[in-house]
Amino acid sequence: MKLYWAPHTRAFRALWLLEEAGLPYERQLVSLDGPFIASAEFRAINPMMKVPALEDGEARIAESGAICLYVAEKAPDAHLAPAIGDPRRARYLQWLFWDAACMEAAFTQKLAGVNLPSRAAGWGSFERVMDVLEAALAPGPYLLGEQFTAADVMVGSNVWYGLTLLKVIEPRPVFTAYVARCEARPAFQRANAIEAEALAA
Amino acid sequence: MKLYWAPHTRAFRALWLLEEAGLPYERQLVSLDGPFIASAEFRAINPMMKVPALEDGEARIAESGAICLYVAEKAPDAHLAPAIGDPRRARYLQWLFWDAACMEAAFTQKLAGVNLPSRAAGWGSFERVMDVLEAALAPGPYLLGEQFTAADVMVGSNVWYGLTLLKVIEPRPVFTAYVARCEARPAFQRANAIEAEALAA
Repeated sequence: MKLYWAPHTRAFRALWLLEEAGLPYERQLVSLDGPFIASAEFRAINPMMKVPALEDGEARIAESGAICLYVAEKAPDAHLAPAIGDPRRARYLQWLFWDAACMEAAFTQKLAGVNLPSRAAGWGSFERVMDVLEAALAPGPYLLGEQFTAADVMVGSNVWYGLTLLKVIEPRPVFTAYVARCEARPAFQRANAIEAEALAA
Repeated sequence: MKLYWAPHTRAFRALWLLEEAGLPYERQLVSLDGPFIASAEFRAINPMMKVPALEDGEARIAESGAICLYVAEKAPDAHLAPAIGDPRRARYLQWLFWDAACMEAAFTQKLAGVNLPSRAAGWGSFERVMDVLEAALAPGPYLLGEQFTAADVMVGSNVWYGLTLLKVIEPRPVFTAYVARCEARPAFQRANAIEAEALAA
């Protein structure tokens, strides 16, 4: 597998998940300033001209949530996903899509001052998203309980990003404790070190 | 399985997918005006207080993309998803998340006048989303070619909605031809008839 990535982007999620999965992969650093990211070659991998994107043999996949789900399926020994048929798979899939559809949208709402009625907005409102997140994380340690999954990579990355870089989330104790558990994971630390090295280069 | 739904909401996607899947299910109509949708009983099913939501034995699942993925996995004979290990599964998962993360966000941008740089916005821009959609649908007949999948239920619902009810998408010929193919499907027509009956009641 080959990951196209750049530091301080949504590619961190794929990087972290690949480190959790423990499968061999290579990385290609992509400049957001081009020209490769806008080239025909890269657009055949991800027409959105965004990172992350992943090549796996003849398969090509973009969207961080899709990549996390895909890699978790390829690495059953890493136990990053409940299997098909396990009733916990329902909530696992829910949190992956909730991150993409609700948490991302709540950040956009806060950052860009979106004014839409909560009935029309798929995410309801920023406050509703924060309250649902707090209630989901309160039992702990992870979204599905004891098992860390790819859904924690997606949601954990956003909580971490929202608290530290974007400063769009208020530091409720449940959020900071969850991020501390994520940061303590060796795979998170390896991904973070890879980012730091690229940023320092 | 039991679907919680309401007409003219994102629950249409789950309704259409369930009709495509051909598995037995029951429907419970939920009023967006409450009080059930805000009750502790429903919040235990979907804390976001939104439809669609699905019960399947002890499993409970919300987010339309997650429900479509989940039901497609439960109904392998309906061939609504490439199996794990099939390289086409990569693009299948990508389009499901692309719909939730990019197409929904592009609609929000257009409807609420969101002003974010395309580098920061996960969806790039409304125009980029429309161009990527057109290029993806041009070969046809469906996103993965000949095989209709749950990704078409998600994307097809949004194109249909965006053209007709929201009027946020321009009627490019590729879009209208794709929607016509979706509308011609017996499962789409059954879902539409169920909605029409509820709206007329």
